[in-house]
Amino acid sequence: MADKLRIGMLGGGRIGKLHATNVQNFVPNAEVVILADPFLNADMEAWAKEINIPHCTKDPEEVFNSPDVDAVFICSSTDTHAEFMMKAAAAKKHIFCEKPIHTDVAKIKEAIAAVENAGVKLQVGFVRRFDRSHKAVRDVVASGKLGKPYVIKVCSRDPGAPPMEYVKVSGGIFVDMMIHDFDMVRYLAGSDVTEVSTTGAVLVDPQFAEYDDVDTAIVTLKFANGAIGVIDNCRQAPYGYDQRVEVLCEKGSVQDNNHLENEAFISTAETVESAKPTYFFLERYNDAFVAEVKDFVAAVLDGKEIPVGGKDGLEPVRIAIAAKKSLKEGRPVKLSEIES
Amino acid sequence: MADKLRIGMLGGGRIGKLHATNVQNFVPNAEVVILADPFLNADMEAWAKEINIPHCTKDPEEVFNSPDVDAVFICSSTDTHAEFMMKAAAAKKHIFCEKPIHTDVAKIKEAIAAVENAGVKLQVGFVRRFDRSHKAVRDVVASGKLGKPYVIKVCSRDPGAPPMEYVKVSGGIFVDMMIHDFDMVRYLAGSDVTEVSTTGAVLVDPQFAEYDDVDTAIVTLKFANGAIGVIDNCRQAPYGYDQRVEVLCEKGSVQDNNHLENEAFISTAETVESAKPTYFFLERYNDAFVAEVKDFVAAVLDGKEIPVGGKDGLEPVRIAIAAKKSLKEGRPVKLSEIES
Amino acid sequence: MADKLRIGMLGGGRIGKLHATNVQNFVPNAEVVILADPFLNADMEAWAKEINIPHCTKDPEEVFNSPDVDAVFICSSTDTHAEFMMKAAAAKKHIFCEKPIHTDVAKIKEAIAAVENAGVKLQVGFVRRFDRSHKAVRDVVASGKLGKPYVIKVCSRDPGAPPMEYVKVSGGIFVDMMIHDFDMVRYLAGSDVTEVSTTGAVLVDPQFAEYDDVDTAIVTLKFANGAIGVIDNCRQAPYGYDQRVEVLCEKGSVQDNNHLENEAFISTAETVESAKPTYFFLERYNDAFVAEVKDFVAAVLDGKEIPVGGKDGLEPVRIAIAAKKSLKEGRPVKLSEIES
Amino acid sequence: MADKLRIGMLGGGRIGKLHATNVQNFVPNAEVVILADPFLNADMEAWAKEINIPHCTKDPEEVFNSPDVDAVFICSSTDTHAEFMMKAAAAKKHIFCEKPIHTDVAKIKEAIAAVENAGVKLQVGFVRRFDRSHKAVRDVVASGKLGKPYVIKVCSRDPGAPPMEYVKVSGGIFVDMMIHDFDMVRYLAGSDVTEVSTTGAVLVDPQFAEYDDVDTAIVTLKFANGAIGVIDNCRQAPYGYDQRVEVLCEKGSVQDNNHLENEAFISTAETVESAKPTYFFLERYNDAFVAEVKDFVAAVLDGKEIPVGGKDGLEPVRIAIAAKKSLKEGRPVKLSEIES
Repeated sequence: MADKLRIGMLGGGRIGKLHATNVQNFVPNAEVVILADPFLNADMEAWAKEINIPHCTKDPEEVFNSPDVDAVFICSSTDTHAEFMMKAAAAKKHIFCEKPIHTDVAKIKEAIAAVENAGVKLQVGFVRRFDRSHKAVRDVVASGKLGKPYVIKVCSRDPGAPPMEYVKVSGGIFVDMMIHDFDMVRYLAGSDVTEVSTTGAVLVDPQFAEYDDVDTAIVTLKFANGAIGVIDNCRQAPYGYDQRVEVLCEKGSVQDNNHLENEAFISTAETVESAKPTYFFLERYNDAFVAEVKDFVAAVLDGKEIPVGGKDGLEPVRIAIAAKKSLKEGRPVKLSEIES
Repeated sequence: MADKLRIGMLGGGRIGKLHATNVQNFVPNAEVVILADPFLNADMEAWAKEINIPHCTKDPEEVFNSPDVDAVFICSSTDTHAEFMMKAAAAKKHIFCEKPIHTDVAKIKEAIAAVENAGVKLQVGFVRRFDRSHKAVRDVVASGKLGKPYVIKVCSRDPGAPPMEYVKVSGGIFVDMMIHDFDMVRYLAGSDVTEVSTTGAVLVDPQFAEYDDVDTAIVTLKFANGAIGVIDNCRQAPYGYDQRVEVLCEKGSVQDNNHLENEAFISTAETVESAKPTYFFLERYNDAFVAEVKDFVAAVLDGKEIPVGGKDGLEPVRIAIAAKKSLKEGRPVKLSEIES
Repeated sequence: MADKLRIGMLGGGRIGKLHATNVQNFVPNAEVVILADPFLNADMEAWAKEINIPHCTKDPEEVFNSPDVDAVFICSSTDTHAEFMMKAAAAKKHIFCEKPIHTDVAKIKEAIAAVENAGVKLQVGFVRRFDRSHKAVRDVVASGKLGKPYVIKVCSRDPGAPPMEYVKVSGGIFVDMMIHDFDMVRYLAGSDVTEVSTTGAVLVDPQFAEYDDVDTAIVTLKFANGAIGVIDNCRQAPYGYDQRVEVLCEKGSVQDNNHLENEAFISTAETVESAKPTYFFLERYNDAFVAEVKDFVAAVLDGKEIPVGGKDGLEPVRIAIAAKKSLKEGRPVKLSEIES
Repeated sequence: MADKLRIGMLGGGRIGKLHATNVQNFVPNAEVVILADPFLNADMEAWAKEINIPHCTKDPEEVFNSPDVDAVFICSSTDTHAEFMMKAAAAKKHIFCEKPIHTDVAKIKEAIAAVENAGVKLQVGFVRRFDRSHKAVRDVVASGKLGKPYVIKVCSRDPGAPPMEYVKVSGGIFVDMMIHDFDMVRYLAGSDVTEVSTTGAVLVDPQFAEYDDVDTAIVTLKFANGAIGVIDNCRQAPYGYDQRVEVLCEKGSVQDNNHLENEAFISTAETVESAKPTYFFLERYNDAFVAEVKDFVAAVLDGKEIPVGGKDGLEPVRIAIAAKKSLKEGRPVKLSEIES
């Protein structure tokens, strides 16, 4: 392989633009050589030119067929992820795929099987694993110096609810939002989830109920290694993006605080005021988006291990399905009840 | 009533001594005038003399019969609480009763009914409500300035597991340890719990399993006002007494950090070290123990409202029973299933 | 000596009351047996009775002459300290003396000499050394694990300026307020001050200028061990009592944060608010006032070393005189220029 | 002027590379079109090509003479700054000049006069003004909501001493290191410095004394608006880059904490450990380097005010000279004593 990984970008929407810009600016040993998006227009082409992407097309097949593409970034709409993975695998391209691969377990398994058969590398875009604070927490747990993990906790709240148009098609809070946290607890625990139990409520906006969804949810979890855990999500935290993780272990605990907009604070006769948490995922996980791509490129070029593989793409979807089922049926649901 | 509340102390064990010392030293408008303890001995008498308790006896009836006693503090063994409450009520003494009143709902109800019939005042010793940080959190919620509560969270961990001799008779983690947190979530939410769902594990010490107990537990809760919540408990947090509460509301969140042993921190080439949380409940809730007694005395002398009444004594026991049932039966349990 | 130190309290004003109450409530091996105050009245007697001081008098000689007094607490007006020290020494009473001993170096030396000749113990009331956070900082420095101290910093601000009636007779900011910090830097550095340089300003209230005083001052210091340091004082910090210390050493730094009223914080769309620092010295140094007396009693009863002795009473006064001289003369002043 | 500012980069060393990379990656309305460096070699050319700088030369005159250059970045060695400023001014190029302009006041004034006569814009590279935390502190002060500033404090420590080869030619701690803090206090106070008084010591490494320098220094300052202040510097803070500022005002204070490597912390039976401050200026002021260039480009393209102008380049040098003089002469030095 060349010194520089040549990337075909599938999708020029928000996340595709983010990854493409990061590759061009921050990943010296990679370059985006082609962008394919069915909604390609003059604006997108201008943007692509600005960041030195030499070629744009509406046709994804151009990407799969190009001999100058070593790897693809699947940043297209969710329903195309599995299909594009299979096409990329067939074309022997390495794959970075945004999460989720699919919302259907069978489809995910089919896509992963295709990737494995082709012998290409696959990384799934669970970006939070690359956040410096979450990673520091996990590295302490994984080091074993605190002994066995007992309790895994994740608090994850968005600054505000998305538009109802989005909620309608999002697949619901477990697949759309908490899926990141299902990945995070597996990452922190170093173990698979075996059972979940869900408590949910519609508190932020009654419209969530119309779409058979909740806007606030707490899911307790059991892990294969014996640990237990809990995730709490809310679609609305007016003070910003609340992202905290915590692991209680045998010999101590490790946790993280939110990242703040700045470190200044004001003390007056009335109160002490400090800055709020960073606003949303673009602010908080800015550096993590770069780090995950660097790791992918290093894994492909240097033969290093992929940090977030196929199973890591599958399991959070299975947990999300179980969590939703638990909410509906009002009982704990074992992961063994969900197709694997 | 006199300017000074005359207190009869029932029980001269750890908690009785704590309350008696606090009354004598910090509550100018109250005094302990008699101490009754069946295990009264020379040491206990010497201690009583030292803090100016003028009379000691082995017989609790002396307390109930004395015309010089305005109020009793029930700090005796748990199995005597309800009975002593009824005797005190019959003798028209006001009552400060350590938690829990009893582990049997019917007995609690009987004792509360006796108190109400007698027209005396009753305060139950849920001391954490008087902690300055937890109280600050609750006051913000109760003020309504953050709008409706959405999510109530309590993390509560002891520094280390108690002796197994104690565990055997403790009634289990829900009645013995988490009962404080069941009170705390009601206090924070300003609403009753309607349903619980429990996840538990034996991680700290396999002996807990022998006593049909767990040492680590997560309980999710639903409240009458629509909010949801979660409590996590562990018998062992080697870094000290971990006591944090958090309420996410419509317009923001309010939470507290642990109190630390001191505010110093050391920065070196290796790390930045700060002090640990205060060691256990005596260190953390030192001031709160005084504050709850001051409030009780003020309620009796000045006719102010009792801050923690009979229902506050009953409900946490019902929630504990429900939580235990949820763990046994592997399903959410509604509070309506528990005798009320 | 008896098991219990019998204390004669000289002065029943604010600080005398504080010490007396602390002794009676928190120091089991000491008791105040007599109180002398020239302004003794019915209120003071009632208070003394309330906390079980058996005898009150207007005449300090009664204290010095009483065979039932082992030690005196000199909490009277500053101008009487040295004289009372000498009388107590003559009467072979151990001495706890509030700071400052005197504002005149010769008088301080005379009083200390009397104490030394009498062979009684003397502790000077520099209470901040007993604060748990400042003490933690100093203990790290004194342990030597960070190597040599390089820079000693103290920030010390009162919540608001005292009444001008007080300012007029206070002796000025260096003798009245910064004297605590001159003691603190010696304590932290483990070394004597050899030179000071003062920058001052009248910013809070122009009336300070009328009394030839400043309300805001920064003093840089050189220490015998080679370290340098800085103290900044202001008479007005509207957010509360600002008390922070910091020592940069060869291998790292150690510092402390303020103690807060509580550990709760509120996060909203506008800001994050936390509690203010504790209001003033009674709130911040509450525990330290008890600790210093316990140490004094232990030193007398058990023959332990006095933690704050005569030289510690003298040196801060000398530094204050030097700092004032530096301000007046607009130049660094060596301590060797001040009578020693 | 074109939509995009065309930049000629003078100097391809560490700071030149940093600015050039930032312009190419993060400043969409600017581009580096030429690089001039007398030490241009194959490596530097390869780097320039990598970040799309189309032309490199050893001759700075090419930059000044090019009609395709709108502005120059002076990132060459300090002794060339003033000369290059004058050449750029003569060529009607706008100027971003790294600090210091010169160590000689007359030279600085001559260069600034040339810039003013030419009518081009000049920004001096005091990057710390663009740090999000320091800027938040200053914005609060400048807003006036805390009333008048009373005390300005800056603590600034490097992680470790530079090589002695560098120290020898650095001009000393005041010109080389504390100059940033002299700028910072002016920025925070919104006022000029009128007097300084210096205390210094050689503590980190005795070699500093050989070069007539100190490695640790405290400078107190008076400001034209009546405020007073203090800066403390040390060449060695083993825990990282210590960068804290604080302003006490009439109605409150505003200060900032260090930025940490991450927000994780570990609690064990022994201690609580958190991450260290970011290592050095590249880590801490990473974002600020981009922000200052964006502001410069906006000032030139959109006619906005230059945030750090000629006087801001001159004054810190004058203060540094005064601080050094104060140390040598052992007395406070007024800024009026220094050539202006």
